[in-house]
Amino acid sequence: MWLPPPALDEIKKSAYKNQIEALRRRLLTLQQRLREADFPVFLVFAGVDGAGKHETINLLYEWLDPRYLVTLAYAQETDEEAARPRMWRYWRDLPVRGQIGMVLSGWYSRPLLDFVKGRSDEKRFARQLDEITRFERMLVDDGALVLKFWMHLSAEQQRERLRRLMDDPLTVWSAQPRDWQHLHLYQRFVSVSETLLDTTHSGTAPWIVLDGSPPRARQVAVAEHLALALEHRLAEPPPETSLTPGGKTKKRLAKLDLGASLEKSEYRTRLREGQSRLLQLHRIAQQSGQSTVLVFEGWDAAGKGGAIRRLVRPLDARSYRVLPIAAPNDEERARHYLWRFWRHIPANGHLRVFDRSWYGRVLVERVEGFATKTQWQRAYEEIVEFETELVESGIRVMKFWIHISPEEQLARFEERAANPLKKWKLTEEDWRNRDKWADYERAVEDMLAHTHQADAPWVLVAGNDKRHARVAVLEAVCEHLSGH
Amino acid sequence: MWLPPPALDEIKKSAYKNQIEALRRRLLTLQQRLREADFPVFLVFAGVDGAGKHETINLLYEWLDPRYLVTLAYAQETDEEAARPRMWRYWRDLPVRGQIGMVLSGWYSRPLLDFVKGRSDEKRFARQLDEITRFERMLVDDGALVLKFWMHLSAEQQRERLRRLMDDPLTVWSAQPRDWQHLHLYQRFVSVSETLLDTTHSGTAPWIVLDGSPPRARQVAVAEHLALALEHRLAEPPPETSLTPGGKTKKRLAKLDLGASLEKSEYRTRLREGQSRLLQLHRIAQQSGQSTVLVFEGWDAAGKGGAIRRLVRPLDARSYRVLPIAAPNDEERARHYLWRFWRHIPANGHLRVFDRSWYGRVLVERVEGFATKTQWQRAYEEIVEFETELVESGIRVMKFWIHISPEEQLARFEERAANPLKKWKLTEEDWRNRDKWADYERAVEDMLAHTHQADAPWVLVAGNDKRHARVAVLEAVCEHLSGH
Repeated sequence: MWLPPPALDEIKKSAYKNQIEALRRRLLTLQQRLREADFPVFLVFAGVDGAGKHETINLLYEWLDPRYLVTLAYAQETDEEAARPRMWRYWRDLPVRGQIGMVLSGWYSRPLLDFVKGRSDEKRFARQLDEITRFERMLVDDGALVLKFWMHLSAEQQRERLRRLMDDPLTVWSAQPRDWQHLHLYQRFVSVSETLLDTTHSGTAPWIVLDGSPPRARQVAVAEHLALALEHRLAEPPPETSLTPGGKTKKRLAKLDLGASLEKSEYRTRLREGQSRLLQLHRIAQQSGQSTVLVFEGWDAAGKGGAIRRLVRPLDARSYRVLPIAAPNDEERARHYLWRFWRHIPANGHLRVFDRSWYGRVLVERVEGFATKTQWQRAYEEIVEFETELVESGIRVMKFWIHISPEEQLARFEERAANPLKKWKLTEEDWRNRDKWADYERAVEDMLAHTHQADAPWVLVAGNDKRHARVAVLEAVCEHLSGH
Repeated sequence: MWLPPPALDEIKKSAYKNQIEALRRRLLTLQQRLREADFPVFLVFAGVDGAGKHETINLLYEWLDPRYLVTLAYAQETDEEAARPRMWRYWRDLPVRGQIGMVLSGWYSRPLLDFVKGRSDEKRFARQLDEITRFERMLVDDGALVLKFWMHLSAEQQRERLRRLMDDPLTVWSAQPRDWQHLHLYQRFVSVSETLLDTTHSGTAPWIVLDGSPPRARQVAVAEHLALALEHRLAEPPPETSLTPGGKTKKRLAKLDLGASLEKSEYRTRLREGQSRLLQLHRIAQQSGQSTVLVFEGWDAAGKGGAIRRLVRPLDARSYRVLPIAAPNDEERARHYLWRFWRHIPANGHLRVFDRSWYGRVLVERVEGFATKTQWQRAYEEIVEFETELVESGIRVMKFWIHISPEEQLARFEERAANPLKKWKLTEEDWRNRDKWADYERAVEDMLAHTHQADAPWVLVAGNDKRHARVAVLEAVCEHLSGH
């Protein structure tokens, strides 16, 4: 039983002043330390309307350095948001490390109200809470401090509070007819909220349920919880939750027949047929608004670029975009590593091709040590959840690993080195990566084992023969697009 | 007379192969040099449908390093785009320095077709071309290389070309019924295009009009133009176009009565009245979808933060955002300095408060030498044009300079230094800036002189008395919002 929370005694004005002064000083110092730290803070405000969510946010703006605060408040979805997975709008808004994001009418708001008002059902509500749990866990795993404040009022207190809000021209807007209706639904609201609190509370993204009726005591309580949590988190980073992907590394790559090849004439025919089919399928997808995400990974010189070019050549340039993924820039590094991919999730029947992708986390970042062991091990699950969210929102997801033998790679490197038109494709890094072939191979095998899903499948493509690889990619995409 | 362009002789296949090899090598080398350079390239493709725009883009993807190419192709506006100034979607898409952006169905497309088809009139068309001219000039002034290719076909050639496109399943989509209709409108299309080419051609953003009928000769022509322009631009940066803002520096600041002050009780009353009025006005603006941009500039410790907090306190957190502007990050530095502000232009009745702003270009960047003299001098006009575009799209713009005397600043610095709750607000930089008071004062006067506009006005606020300043800001905003 979460609700109602124990009643808070109001603090006398004089005592409040003293208490606040010390508290503010403590919070300011903590905020300064936070700025140097490498994690963001999320303060989620939810609960009964009129229980002081807005006031708390205003107060924090007054107390703290506003340059490192950001309010994340959500009104009606725009159509760009509505066309994408539900959590897209929150992902694209992530505060950067060192900042405090204050979430109002955030990810809990719509699912809760929709269910209370009968606009959704138990199953949908449960799924939405599940999405939220995964989202918050990803943030926490990435180092974020997540505190969720549930500000509560009894039915009688809310009625009284709304009456006061209505009486004041400065606050009348915040007591909308909607709220009076909530009051009517108060009992149901409370019981659904119980479920919500139960389901989404965790040790790392805890709910703090507060009596919202005494303004001063409530502010002090929030501020103290925040200060404590910050002190704790700054003193001691949370233990990294390590996942050990089970099972032995399988040998999928070795089983691939790298001898597969295509004659030029057959290649031409099948390429043309495939392109024509893809064009039709893509146009159908556009009409139905079903978007597609294609991921291309593979060894250096495996032929990703050539395969992608043949794939998109017949398509209308306005309907797709190819995104080459390089090292993250500083805006990207300042956030969760998935943020920069969330930004580019397509909508409205678009096709987005990622030339390299989020799998860098478990490939180059693992092998080169840019990600800690815990980070890349955790990434398998994070990626599966990320792709699941895309798939569940109606986006088709498909991933290609283009495979070549080390000998073929060497031959291509040497050809590149000798050909002035291709020399630019070859870098020192390519040679260095080549020396770590075995490490990469292990990483690829693990990646395939842990992130293959029926509706976001990995397709292994034998790439020693470029013609074969290009046609194989094209036909696999057609297959996948026509399968739904 | 631009159209038709002189006919191009087709190149024989064998000769083409040799020509292309040398050309590709040249372009690759240039692209590599471009990557190290500090400007982006815009290749704008326009002209008659079927004249080879798509094919040219595909070819460049094949020839060049695709990681530094980006296609900017525009379909129907999303509602987030439609709700903002017309050029917003292009601003938010700017390629970064070192990249080549290839623009298809870009900023010329809609104005041209709308006018040809009678969906807009001469006046609107002229205004749109004017917007485009200003946009391209800003890019060029910032260093961008802008090349615009007009690919032409005669009516007969287009008919023939569309027939061929229709016959091929791979290209049938690109010959849409729309295009046949254009053919019907061909004569009008050509005459309107003449106007467009005339109006928007300039030495620094030139149109290159090409016969699009012979595929190989056309590709070679585009590639050669690109290579030449790149060579030229890389060899010799364009002379900076210097603007000398005329007239003597006026003494607006000195005329401000810094003695203005308010009693506490009057302050309270007027603050409350102002907030209540602002709330109403803001809600009306929200309902009518009219957005507002407020800019706050002022001396360090002038009280910008406090004024902003009092201003937004009564508002629904979902309806406004306060954006503190610090030094640009690397994603921002890689683009035109206005890009990061274009990103944050509000829509749908939102209020956006910039705590410091694009005026940094003519204040801190001028005084500290982060911008060259040419850059900051040019910025006055750029900023006026930027704000004009906002205003013309229906956004209300207002700018505050909060002024204090050097003595008052010193007193506040000393108070901050002594108060543990405010110490964080004071930095070494503040003291350094203070030493340059006279330089900043001159910069402020110039800024006021060159960027004050009737519908994007500067409001000077006497800030020695905080109560006076807060009320003055609040009441000025109300005045401005109720004025339309």
